[in-house]
Amino acid sequence: MTFPKQVTLVEVSPRDGLQNEKAIVPTAVKIELINRLADTGLTVIEATSFVSAKRIPQLADASAVWQGIKKRPTVRYPVLIPNLAGLENALAVGVKEIAVFTTPSEQFSQKNTHCSVTESLQRIEKVTQLAKQHGLPIRGYVSCVLGCPYEGEIAAEKVATLSKTLMALGCDEISLGDTIGVGTPNKTQQLIECVAAQVPIKKLAVHFHDTYGQALANIYVALLCGVSVIDSAAGGLGGCPYAVGASGNVATEDVLYMLNGMGIETGVDMQKLLGVVAFIARELGKAPVSRVYRALQ
Amino acid sequence: MTFPKQVTLVEVSPRDGLQNEKAIVPTAVKIELINRLADTGLTVIEATSFVSAKRIPQLADASAVWQGIKKRPTVRYPVLIPNLAGLENALAVGVKEIAVFTTPSEQFSQKNTHCSVTESLQRIEKVTQLAKQHGLPIRGYVSCVLGCPYEGEIAAEKVATLSKTLMALGCDEISLGDTIGVGTPNKTQQLIECVAAQVPIKKLAVHFHDTYGQALANIYVALLCGVSVIDSAAGGLGGCPYAVGASGNVATEDVLYMLNGMGIETGVDMQKLLGVVAFIARELGKAPVSRVYRALQ
Repeated sequence: MTFPKQVTLVEVSPRDGLQNEKAIVPTAVKIELINRLADTGLTVIEATSFVSAKRIPQLADASAVWQGIKKRPTVRYPVLIPNLAGLENALAVGVKEIAVFTTPSEQFSQKNTHCSVTESLQRIEKVTQLAKQHGLPIRGYVSCVLGCPYEGEIAAEKVATLSKTLMALGCDEISLGDTIGVGTPNKTQQLIECVAAQVPIKKLAVHFHDTYGQALANIYVALLCGVSVIDSAAGGLGGCPYAVGASGNVATEDVLYMLNGMGIETGVDMQKLLGVVAFIARELGKAPVSRVYRALQ
Repeated sequence: MTFPKQVTLVEVSPRDGLQNEKAIVPTAVKIELINRLADTGLTVIEATSFVSAKRIPQLADASAVWQGIKKRPTVRYPVLIPNLAGLENALAVGVKEIAVFTTPSEQFSQKNTHCSVTESLQRIEKVTQLAKQHGLPIRGYVSCVLGCPYEGEIAAEKVATLSKTLMALGCDEISLGDTIGVGTPNKTQQLIECVAAQVPIKKLAVHFHDTYGQALANIYVALLCGVSVIDSAAGGLGGCPYAVGASGNVATEDVLYMLNGMGIETGVDMQKLLGVVAFIARELGKAPVSRVYRALQ
């Protein structure tokens, strides 16, 4: 069996991790979190989302966070963009890379973004057109790829078609999100193989939530399929406020432990990462849920 | 990729799960736990250990537990046997199946059983000889197969040689134990392939602790290698009192969720199993650590 020699970890804790926290995290803490994450060797850190402050008050400080972080030349700091207004705000502060999102589930789309899947693609097209004019790389998130809290099973072909459409709209990478964590290894393999028939495997990332403890087994399968970009969140922070049963993202330190054991390079320092987990846990007043943190702290 | 169509789950919570609990669990609770586990569809439940009461006071009631459980004809109730005296006590109450244990790590052997590996094999030989005279099936546990808290890395060849020796001494099955949970998928694969060159794969079981969250990924790999017997503990109970950093066994419900998702039959009912987890958690006054329990309770 062959695996990628190197994996890029896309750290999503500052955005996907924090957006679910009820108590507003001070902007300075968010900035320090991102700077500390960059110190660990992570090369891609999703910094925030330029979403309506009314929709997600936690991320109302997107511009201030973006402007406050110390930009390392070797680190990419993408931000999530829900619509054209968000992109305009992001461009105004000099954002260099963005992400957009949609889902194959009509019901999830309605609950999460109050529009149909087709309408979400129309929104995305406006965003990608302007982003491309500014030369920004674009990541496309596809949510609920292995199951939807409202619709149940999702056909892999729908995910593949949607992923291809996102690429046609200008996305450079597709992140396949198991938003509610219901995926298991064989279904993960079938999904990735189905999507990889439409989108080159090198353009695919995986984004697992560890709701049922399946994330690492699924990531192992994704590696077997040739995927070399993995989303994760330090301390297993996060979840989706609009998805019932969506507990935290897979913890970066749990993924890193597996990749280290497999001899796959990431450039990330475990001890420094555990230090960041301790920092954000202190700030949030919560004990980290990851097994690796609890074993190694 | 092919997988076993059916997997036997060996439930170890009554022994490996409870032996680490400081407060003595009443005998009646242990009996009820085992009877409830049998109600879920589990077909192998390690009931107790006939160990010295001085060494592990929690298991001083081994005879009473064994005699108290309602024996279903379709369920096997093996017990752990450390020495000849333990086997004699087990035979006195009519035990039908036993397990013995050793390790390739000299230092772990000394700390865990106060004897060398060679001496432990001499003890085991006395036990297996008498057990065979009584026609008892024997399982051999090999501890620390993917790492030792005192010696660090353990060569797969040592595990393979020891497993072969245990088979020669009369064991019918070998359970490979990652006692401190440090295993990762590729090392697991290498280990199983190395051992399977000496012992038929159908005679191998895997026993993972989820200390670093790697258990399900490793179990997936074991399934890929053709292993069809998996040890686990309801609620992720347990650990090893003599191994630093050895947190709980992989949770039966987490394993079951993966196997169900892969279409692999076990005969175990998830809802009934979660009921047992709730029962023992209440009795121990502890919240279960498994992701599946927290998501589905």
